Amino acid sequence: MDKKIITISRQFGSGGHTIAKEVAEKLGVPLYDSELISEVAKKSGLSEEFIRQNEEYASHSNSLLYQIAMSAMGSHGYPSVYQQLYNAQTKVIEELADREECVIVGRCADYILRERPDALHVFIHADKAHRAEHILTQYGPTDKSTEQRMKEKDDKRRNYYRFHTNREWGLCENYHLSLDSGLLGIEKCVDLIVTAATDDFKNK
Amino acid sequence: MDKKIITISRQFGSGGHTIAKEVAEKLGVPLYDSELISEVAKKSGLSEEFIRQNEEYASHSNSLLYQIAMSAMGSHGYPSVYQQLYNAQTKVIEELADREECVIVGRCADYILRERPDALHVFIHADKAHRAEHILTQYGPTDKSTEQRMKEKDDKRRNYYRFHTNREWGLCENYHLSLDSGLLGIEKCVDLIVTAATDDFKNK
Repeated sequence: MDKKIITISRQFGSGGHTIAKEVAEKLGVPLYDSELISEVAKKSGLSEEFIRQNEEYASHSNSLLYQIAMSAMGSHGYPSVYQQLYNAQTKVIEELADREECVIVGRCADYILRERPDALHVFIHADKAHRAEHILTQYGPTDKSTEQRMKEKDDKRRNYYRFHTNREWGLCENYHLSLDSGLLGIEKCVDLIVTAATDDFKNK
Repeated sequence: MDKKIITISRQFGSGGHTIAKEVAEKLGVPLYDSELISEVAKKSGLSEEFIRQNEEYASHSNSLLYQIAMSAMGSHGYPSVYQQLYNAQTKVIEELADREECVIVGRCADYILRERPDALHVFIHADKAHRAEHILTQYGPTDKSTEQRMKEKDDKRRNYYRFHTNREWGLCENYHLSLDSGLLGIEKCVDLIVTAATDDFKNK
Protein backbone atom coordinates (compact mmCIF):
# COMPACT_ATOMS: atom_id res chain seq x y z
CA MET A 1 0.00 0.00 0.00
CA ASP A 2 1.06 3.64 -0.40
CA LYS A 3 0.58 4.33 3.27
CA LYS A 4 2.68 1.95 5.31
CA ILE A 5 0.81 2.29 8.59
CA ILE A 6 -2.89 2.73 9.33
CA THR A 7 -3.91 3.69 12.86
CA ILE A 8 -7.53 3.22 13.83
CA SER A 9 -8.98 5.02 16.86
CA ARG A 10 -12.56 4.25 17.77
CA GLN A 11 -15.50 4.88 20.05
CA PHE A 12 -16.46 1.82 22.10
CA GLY A 13 -18.98 -0.28 20.18
CA SER A 14 -18.40 1.43 16.83
CA GLY A 15 -17.01 -1.72 15.20
CA GLY A 16 -13.51 -0.22 14.98
CA HIS A 17 -11.80 -3.52 15.74
CA THR A 18 -13.80 -5.41 13.10
CA ILE A 19 -13.09 -2.69 10.52
CA ALA A 20 -9.37 -2.70 11.38
CA LYS A 21 -9.27 -6.50 11.04
CA GLU A 22 -10.93 -6.43 7.61
CA VAL A 23 -8.69 -3.58 6.40
CA ALA A 24 -5.61 -5.56 7.47
CA GLU A 25 -6.89 -8.70 5.72
CA LYS A 26 -7.71 -6.80 2.54
CA LEU A 27 -4.24 -5.23 2.45
CA GLY A 28 -2.49 -8.43 3.55
CA VAL A 29 -0.75 -6.80 6.51
CA PRO A 30 -0.77 -7.71 10.23
CA LEU A 31 -3.25 -6.22 12.70
CA TYR A 32 -2.10 -5.04 16.11
CA ASP A 33 -4.81 -4.60 18.69
CA SER A 34 -4.65 -6.86 21.76
CA GLU A 35 -1.68 -8.44 19.92
CA LEU A 36 0.34 -5.49 21.24
CA ILE A 37 -0.07 -6.66 24.83
CA SER A 38 2.51 -9.46 24.72
CA GLU A 39 5.01 -7.17 22.95
CA VAL A 40 4.55 -4.53 25.64
CA ALA A 41 4.89 -7.20 28.35
CA LYS A 42 8.23 -8.32 26.91
CA LYS A 43 9.48 -4.75 26.64
CA SER A 44 8.36 -3.57 30.09
CA GLY A 45 8.50 -6.64 32.30
CA LEU A 46 4.91 -5.89 33.36
CA SER A 47 2.36 -8.70 33.42
CA GLU A 48 -0.03 -9.13 30.50
CA GLU A 49 -2.90 -8.95 32.99
CA PHE A 50 -1.77 -5.56 34.32
CA ILE A 51 -1.28 -4.23 30.79
CA ARG A 52 -4.70 -5.45 29.68
CA GLN A 53 -6.36 -3.61 32.55
CA ASN A 54 -4.41 -0.39 32.29
CA GLU A 55 -3.12 0.11 28.75
CA GLU A 56 -5.92 2.20 27.33
CA TYR A 57 -8.41 2.09 30.15
CA ALA A 58 -6.54 3.64 33.02
CA SER A 59 -8.34 2.25 36.03
CA HIS A 60 -8.86 5.80 37.28
CA SER A 61 -11.38 7.27 34.93
CA ASN A 62 -11.06 10.56 36.80
CA SER A 63 -8.23 12.28 34.99
CA LEU A 64 -6.87 14.03 38.08
CA LEU A 65 -6.40 10.76 39.97
CA TYR A 66 -4.77 9.26 36.91
CA GLN A 67 -2.48 12.25 36.64
CA ILE A 68 -1.35 11.76 40.23
CA ALA A 69 -0.82 8.03 39.69
CA MET A 70 1.08 8.71 36.46
CA SER A 71 3.46 11.23 37.93
CA ALA A 72 4.08 9.36 41.22
CA MET A 73 7.54 7.87 41.36
CA GLY A 74 8.29 4.36 42.63
CA SER A 75 10.11 3.92 45.92
CA HIS A 76 13.50 4.13 44.18
CA GLY A 77 12.72 7.21 42.13
CA TYR A 78 11.79 5.27 39.00
CA PRO A 79 8.74 6.26 36.89
CA SER A 80 5.44 4.80 38.09
CA VAL A 81 4.27 1.51 36.57
CA TYR A 82 1.67 3.50 34.59
CA GLN A 83 4.37 5.65 33.03
CA GLN A 84 6.50 2.56 32.37
CA LEU A 85 3.55 0.99 30.62
CA TYR A 86 2.97 4.03 28.40
CA ASN A 87 6.68 4.32 27.60
CA ALA A 88 6.91 0.64 26.63
CA GLN A 89 3.75 0.92 24.53
CA THR A 90 5.15 3.96 22.69
CA LYS A 91 8.41 2.16 22.00
CA VAL A 92 6.62 -0.96 20.69
CA ILE A 93 4.42 1.13 18.36
CA GLU A 94 7.40 3.12 17.03
CA GLU A 95 9.39 -0.05 16.39
CA LEU A 96 6.45 -1.73 14.64
CA ALA A 97 6.02 1.30 12.37
CA ASP A 98 9.71 1.18 11.47
CA ARG A 99 9.65 -2.55 10.91
CA GLU A 100 6.57 -3.37 8.85
CA GLU A 101 3.36 -2.37 7.14
CA CYS A 102 0.51 -2.83 9.58
CA VAL A 103 -2.79 -1.68 11.07
CA ILE A 104 -2.68 -0.53 14.72
CA VAL A 105 -5.80 -0.06 16.86
CA GLY A 106 -6.08 2.61 19.59
CA ARG A 107 -3.39 3.24 22.24
CA CYS A 108 -2.67 6.84 21.09
CA ALA A 109 -0.94 5.38 17.99
CA ASP A 110 -2.28 8.30 15.89
CA TYR A 111 -0.43 10.70 18.20
CA ILE A 112 2.70 8.59 18.62
CA LEU A 113 3.08 8.32 14.81
CA ARG A 114 1.78 11.82 13.99
CA GLU A 115 5.01 12.93 12.32
CA ARG A 116 5.26 9.96 9.96
CA PRO A 117 4.27 10.90 6.40
CA ASP A 118 3.62 7.22 5.64
CA ALA A 119 0.80 6.86 8.20
CA LEU A 120 -2.94 7.28 7.68
CA HIS A 121 -4.90 8.09 10.84
CA VAL A 122 -8.54 7.03 11.03
CA PHE A 123 -11.30 7.57 13.62
CA ILE A 124 -14.43 5.37 13.73
CA HIS A 125 -17.58 6.46 15.52
CA ALA A 126 -21.32 5.73 15.39
CA ASP A 127 -24.63 6.80 16.85
CA LYS A 128 -25.64 5.27 20.18
CA ALA A 129 -28.27 2.91 18.79
CA HIS A 130 -25.79 1.20 16.46
CA ARG A 131 -23.17 1.06 19.19
CA ALA A 132 -25.57 -0.46 21.72
CA GLU A 133 -26.52 -3.17 19.22
CA HIS A 134 -22.87 -3.89 18.44
CA ILE A 135 -21.94 -4.08 22.15
CA LEU A 136 -24.70 -6.59 22.90
CA THR A 137 -23.82 -8.74 19.87
CA GLN A 138 -20.06 -8.66 20.40
CA TYR A 139 -19.68 -8.62 24.18
CA GLY A 140 -23.09 -9.73 25.50
CA PRO A 141 -25.14 -8.09 28.23
CA THR A 142 -23.76 -7.22 31.69
CA ASP A 143 -25.43 -5.72 34.77
CA LYS A 144 -24.72 -2.25 33.35
CA SER A 145 -26.76 -0.57 30.62
CA THR A 146 -25.11 -0.23 27.20
CA GLU A 147 -25.37 3.56 27.66
CA GLN A 148 -23.34 3.33 30.86
CA ARG A 149 -20.78 0.96 29.30
CA MET A 150 -20.26 3.33 26.35
CA LYS A 151 -19.86 6.31 28.61
CA GLU A 152 -17.41 4.61 30.97
CA LYS A 153 -15.18 3.20 28.28
CA ASP A 154 -15.17 6.33 26.13
CA ASP A 155 -14.48 8.52 29.17
CA LYS A 156 -11.49 6.36 30.06
CA ARG A 157 -10.15 6.45 26.51
CA ARG A 158 -10.73 10.23 26.34
CA ASN A 159 -8.92 10.88 29.62
CA TYR A 160 -6.06 8.58 28.75
CA TYR A 161 -5.69 10.24 25.34
CA ARG A 162 -5.91 13.76 26.75
CA PHE A 163 -3.37 13.03 29.45
CA HIS A 164 -0.76 11.57 27.11
CA THR A 165 -1.28 13.74 24.04
CA ASN A 166 -2.66 17.04 25.33
CA ARG A 167 -5.25 16.78 22.55
CA GLU A 168 -9.01 16.34 22.50
CA TRP A 169 -10.14 12.85 21.51
CA GLY A 170 -12.38 12.64 18.41
CA LEU A 171 -11.55 16.01 16.82
CA CYS A 172 -11.66 15.80 13.01
CA GLU A 173 -8.38 17.62 12.56
CA ASN A 174 -6.40 14.91 14.38
CA TYR A 175 -7.32 12.29 11.76
CA HIS A 176 -7.03 12.08 8.01
CA LEU A 177 -10.32 10.27 7.77
CA SER A 178 -13.18 9.84 10.19
CA LEU A 179 -16.18 7.66 9.50
CA ASP A 180 -19.64 7.03 10.93
CA SER A 181 -19.85 3.24 10.83
CA GLY A 182 -23.51 3.37 11.92
CA LEU A 183 -24.58 5.16 8.76
CA LEU A 184 -21.95 3.87 6.34
CA GLY A 185 -21.76 0.26 7.57
CA ILE A 186 -18.68 -1.86 8.21
CA GLU A 187 -17.98 -2.84 4.59
CA LYS A 188 -18.17 0.69 3.21
CA CYS A 189 -15.86 1.92 5.98
CA VAL A 190 -13.36 -0.79 5.05
CA ASP A 191 -13.55 0.22 1.38
CA LEU A 192 -13.15 3.93 2.11
CA ILE A 193 -10.10 3.33 4.32
CA VAL A 194 -8.46 1.05 1.75
CA THR A 195 -9.14 3.60 -1.02
CA ALA A 196 -7.73 6.44 1.10
CA ALA A 197 -4.61 4.43 1.95
CA THR A 198 -3.77 2.90 -1.40
CA ASP A 199 -4.30 5.13 -4.43
CA ASP A 200 -1.87 7.81 -5.43
CA PHE A 201 -1.81 10.63 -2.89
CA LYS A 202 -2.16 14.16 -4.22
CA ASN A 203 -0.96 17.43 -2.72
CA LYS A 204 1.68 15.76 -0.59
CA MET B 1 -27.69 9.31 -5.65
CA ASP B 2 -28.71 7.29 -2.58
CA LYS B 3 -28.21 10.26 -0.31
CA LYS B 4 -30.31 13.14 -1.52
CA ILE B 5 -28.45 15.93 0.26
CA ILE B 6 -24.76 16.36 0.99
CA THR B 7 -23.73 19.09 3.44
CA ILE B 8 -20.09 20.16 3.44
CA SER B 9 -18.65 22.05 6.40
CA ARG B 10 -15.06 23.22 6.11
CA GLN B 11 -12.11 24.95 7.69
CA PHE B 12 -11.16 28.16 5.88
CA GLY B 13 -8.65 27.38 3.13
CA SER B 14 -9.24 23.62 3.16
CA GLY B 15 -10.63 23.60 -0.39
CA GLY B 16 -14.12 22.72 0.85
CA HIS B 17 -15.84 24.90 -1.75
CA THR B 18 -13.85 23.36 -4.62
CA ILE B 19 -14.56 19.84 -3.34
CA ALA B 20 -18.29 20.64 -2.97
CA LYS B 21 -18.39 22.04 -6.53
CA GLU B 22 -16.74 18.94 -8.00
CA VAL B 23 -18.98 16.58 -5.99
CA ALA B 24 -22.07 18.45 -7.27
CA GLU B 25 -20.78 18.28 -10.87
CA LYS B 26 -19.98 14.58 -10.58
CA LEU B 27 -23.44 13.81 -9.21
CA GLY B 28 -25.18 16.23 -11.58
CA VAL B 29 -26.92 18.16 -8.79
CA PRO B 30 -26.90 21.88 -7.93
CA LEU B 31 -24.40 23.41 -5.50
CA TYR B 32 -25.54 25.92 -2.89
CA ASP B 33 -22.81 28.02 -1.35
CA SER B 34 -22.97 31.79 -2.00
CA GLU B 35 -25.95 30.86 -4.22
CA LEU B 36 -27.97 30.72 -1.00
CA ILE B 37 -27.55 34.45 -0.42
CA SER B 38 -30.12 35.62 -2.96
CA GLU B 39 -32.62 33.00 -1.71
CA VAL B 40 -32.16 34.21 1.85
CA ALA B 41 -32.51 37.83 0.69
CA LYS B 42 -35.86 37.05 -0.96
CA LYS B 43 -37.10 35.21 2.12
CA SER B 44 -35.96 37.75 4.72
CA GLY B 45 -36.11 41.11 2.96
CA LEU B 46 -32.51 41.72 4.12
CA SER B 47 -29.97 43.04 1.62
CA GLU B 48 -27.58 40.62 -0.08
CA GLU B 49 -24.71 42.76 1.18
CA PHE B 50 -25.84 42.43 4.80
CA ILE B 51 -26.33 38.69 4.41
CA ARG B 52 -22.91 38.22 2.83
CA GLN B 53 -21.24 39.96 5.76
CA ASN B 54 -23.21 38.30 8.52
CA GLU B 55 -24.48 34.92 7.38
CA GLU B 56 -21.67 32.72 8.59
CA TYR B 57 -19.20 35.27 9.76
CA ALA B 58 -21.10 37.16 12.42
CA SER B 59 -19.27 40.46 12.51
CA HIS B 60 -18.77 39.98 16.24
CA SER B 61 -16.25 37.22 16.49
CA ASN B 62 -16.57 37.42 20.27
CA SER B 63 -19.40 35.06 20.99
CA LEU B 64 -20.73 36.99 23.98
CA LEU B 65 -21.22 40.16 21.93
CA TYR B 66 -22.85 38.09 19.22
CA GLN B 67 -25.12 36.50 21.76
CA ILE B 68 -26.27 39.92 22.96
CA ALA B 69 -26.81 41.13 19.39
CA MET B 70 -28.71 37.95 18.54
CA SER B 71 -31.09 38.15 21.44
CA ALA B 72 -31.69 41.90 21.24
CA MET B 73 -35.15 42.71 19.98
CA GLY B 74 -35.92 45.39 17.43
CA SER B 75 -37.77 48.54 18.52
CA HIS B 76 -41.14 46.89 17.90
CA GLY B 77 -40.33 43.67 19.75
CA TYR B 78 -39.41 41.72 16.61
CA PRO B 79 -36.35 39.41 16.54
CA SER B 80 -33.04 41.14 15.78
CA VAL B 81 -31.87 41.23 12.16
CA TYR B 82 -29.27 38.61 13.04
CA GLN B 83 -31.96 36.24 14.27
CA GLN B 84 -34.10 37.03 11.21
CA LEU B 85 -31.14 36.18 9.01
CA TYR B 86 -30.57 32.83 10.75
CA ASN B 87 -34.28 31.98 10.63
CA ALA B 88 -34.51 32.77 6.91
CA GLN B 89 -31.35 30.76 6.21
CA THR B 90 -32.75 27.76 8.11
CA LYS B 91 -36.01 27.95 6.19
CA VAL B 92 -34.25 28.19 2.82
CA ILE B 93 -32.04 25.17 3.65
CA GLU B 94 -35.01 23.09 4.82
CA GLU B 95 -37.01 23.95 1.70
CA LEU B 96 -34.08 23.14 -0.59
CA ALA B 97 -33.65 19.76 1.09
CA ASP B 98 -37.35 19.00 0.59
CA ARG B 99 -37.29 20.19 -3.00
CA GLU B 100 -34.23 18.72 -4.67
CA GLU B 101 -31.02 16.73 -4.53
CA CYS B 102 -28.16 19.12 -3.85
CA VAL B 103 -24.85 19.91 -2.17
CA ILE B 104 -24.95 22.65 0.50
CA VAL B 105 -21.83 24.34 1.89
CA GLY B 106 -21.53 25.60 5.49
CA ARG B 107 -24.23 27.67 7.25
CA CYS B 108 -24.96 25.02 9.94
CA ALA B 109 -26.69 22.91 7.26
CA ASP B 110 -25.35 19.72 8.90
CA TYR B 111 -27.17 20.71 12.09
CA ILE B 112 -30.32 22.04 10.41
CA LEU B 113 -30.71 18.77 8.46
CA ARG B 114 -29.41 16.45 11.21
CA GLU B 115 -32.64 14.46 11.47
CA ARG B 116 -32.90 13.70 7.75
CA PRO B 117 -31.91 10.10 6.99
CA ASP B 118 -31.27 11.08 3.35
CA ALA B 119 -28.45 13.51 4.18
CA LEU B 120 -24.71 12.83 4.30
CA HIS B 121 -22.75 15.30 6.45
CA VAL B 122 -19.10 15.94 5.57
CA PHE B 123 -16.34 18.00 7.22
CA ILE B 124 -13.21 19.07 5.29
CA HIS B 125 -10.04 20.18 7.06
CA ALA B 126 -6.32 20.37 6.33
CA ASP B 127 -3.01 21.21 7.93
CA LYS B 128 -1.97 24.85 8.07
CA ALA B 129 0.65 24.66 5.33
CA HIS B 130 -1.84 23.38 2.77
CA ARG B 131 -4.46 25.88 3.86
CA ALA B 132 -2.04 28.82 3.64
CA GLU B 133 -1.11 27.81 0.10
CA HIS B 134 -4.76 27.46 -0.89
CA ILE B 135 -5.69 30.84 0.61
CA LEU B 136 -2.92 32.64 -1.30
CA THR B 137 -3.81 30.91 -4.58
CA GLN B 138 -7.58 31.36 -4.28
CA TYR B 139 -7.94 34.71 -2.55
CA GLY B 140 -4.52 36.36 -2.94
CA PRO B 141 -2.46 38.07 -0.24
CA THR B 142 -3.82 40.78 2.10
CA ASP B 143 -2.15 42.84 4.82
CA LYS B 144 -2.85 40.02 7.28
CA SER B 145 -0.82 36.82 7.55
CA THR B 146 -2.48 33.62 6.33
CA GLU B 147 -2.21 32.32 9.91
CA GLN B 148 -4.25 35.29 11.15
CA ARG B 149 -6.80 34.95 8.34
CA MET B 150 -7.33 31.27 9.13
CA LYS B 151 -7.72 31.94 12.82
CA GLU B 152 -10.15 34.83 12.36
CA LYS B 153 -12.41 33.07 9.91
CA ASP B 154 -12.42 29.72 11.73
CA ASP B 155 -13.10 31.46 15.06
CA LYS B 156 -16.09 33.24 13.53
CA ARG B 157 -17.44 30.03 12.02
CA ARG B 158 -16.86 28.16 15.30
CA ASN B 159 -18.65 30.82 17.37
CA TYR B 160 -21.51 31.08 14.92
CA TYR B 161 -21.89 27.29 14.88
CA ARG B 162 -21.66 26.95 18.66
CA PHE B 163 -24.21 29.70 19.22
CA HIS B 164 -26.81 28.27 16.86
CA THR B 165 -26.30 24.54 17.43
CA ASN B 166 -24.91 24.22 20.96
CA ARG B 167 -22.35 21.83 19.47
CA GLU B 168 -18.59 21.98 19.03
CA TRP B 169 -17.46 22.68 15.47
CA GLY B 170 -15.21 20.00 13.89
CA LEU B 171 -16.05 17.08 16.18
CA CYS B 172 -15.96 13.75 14.29
CA GLU B 173 -19.25 12.55 15.73
CA ASN B 174 -21.22 15.40 14.13
CA TYR B 175 -20.31 14.23 10.60
CA HIS B 176 -20.63 10.96 8.74
CA LEU B 177 -17.33 11.55 7.00
CA SER B 178 -14.45 13.90 7.70
CA LEU B 179 -11.47 14.26 5.42
CA ASP B 180 -8.01 15.83 5.49
CA SER B 181 -7.80 17.44 2.07
CA GLY B 182 -4.13 18.34 2.65
CA LEU B 183 -3.07 14.72 2.84
CA LEU B 184 -5.71 13.15 0.60
CA GLY B 185 -5.89 15.86 -2.08
CA ILE B 186 -8.98 17.39 -3.67
CA GLU B 187 -9.69 14.60 -6.17
CA LYS B 188 -9.50 11.79 -3.65
CA CYS B 189 -11.80 13.72 -1.28
CA VAL B 190 -14.32 14.09 -4.12
CA ASP B 191 -14.13 10.36 -4.87
CA LEU B 192 -14.53 9.36 -1.23
CA ILE B 193 -17.58 11.61 -0.76
CA VAL B 194 -19.23 10.34 -3.94
CA THR B 195 -18.54 6.73 -2.89
CA ALA B 196 -19.94 7.34 0.59
CA ALA B 197 -23.07 9.02 -0.84
CA THR B 198 -23.91 6.70 -3.68
CA ASP B 199 -23.38 2.99 -3.06
CA ASP B 200 -25.80 0.87 -1.11
CA PHE B 201 -25.87 1.78 2.55
CA LYS B 202 -25.46 -1.00 5.10
CA ASN B 203 -26.58 -1.19 8.72
CA LYS B 204 -29.24 1.43 8.26
